[in-house]
Amino acid sequence: MLRRLFLLCWTPLLFAQTDEVRTLIKNSEEAWNRGDLVAFASAYEDAPDTTFIGREVTRGGTQAILERYRRTYPTRDAMGKLAFSEIEIRMLAADVALATGKYELKRTAAGGGDASGRFTLILRRSAAGWKIIHDHSS
Amino acid sequence: MLRRLFLLCWTPLLFAQTDEVRTLIKNSEEAWNRGDLVAFASAYEDAPDTTFIGREVTRGGTQAILERYRRTYPTRDAMGKLAFSEIEIRMLAADVALATGKYELKRTAAGGGDASGRFTLILRRSAAGWKIIHDHSS
Repeated sequence: MLRRLFLLCWTPLLFAQTDEVRTLIKNSEEAWNRGDLVAFASAYEDAPDTTFIGREVTRGGTQAILERYRRTYPTRDAMGKLAFSEIEIRMLAADVALATGKYELKRTAAGGGDASGRFTLILRRSAAGWKIIHDHSS
Repeated sequence: MLRRLFLLCWTPLLFAQTDEVRTLIKNSEEAWNRGDLVAFASAYEDAPDTTFIGREVTRGGTQAILERYRRTYPTRDAMGKLAFSEIEIRMLAADVALATGKYELKRTAAGGGDASGRFTLILRRSAAGWKIIHDHSS
């Protein structure tokens, strides 16, 4: 009974939190598609132990993440049009979430052609809101 | 002062937990290298929402994970010799950890040749000890 009551109280909060994470991901997609890499990188926690595992490992705050994206996607053609899908969010603790999903880039041949893959994000909520502390994209 | 006292009490516990996760990863490596995929798969939580992102997404308990490994690495030659390195463990909550690292497979040409990549593991501690609830390997 107590457990049920607990779940009853807790469930709306969990939904609210996964909604916040979903909004962050949606905002990232929109930032990308208007070519705003600064806004895109601001979704990452600006801390030295933030990590991004892509082809190589990037460490550091939003500036390091931003430089990595600028290097990998130097033009609007290379950025293409981004669409996230199959997004699943799991709360790991009150302020920690795991988000997984698929990304697809529609690009011209000059931009490198279409690309797609999957991502794993670990997010933590602090005073600044939800931020990505680790990204593994492949 | 209270914060310092708290950290003083808490730090040994954090070290103990990262050691446990490190041991699980070491045990997995050893299980792989003696060809024991059942023991290797037992590091994953036997639950329907356990996920493995590799080339495709695998969902489910240890049996689904085991079948995925048996399909991808059907022979001892294909399994080769596994070595994990650059392992970093971050506690995300009292019973949740993020582990990242590098894997290298030394294999014969018949086994598919050498391979390497990076992994992100999310682990949760329950009554059964630490278990992997999500793996992203690329």
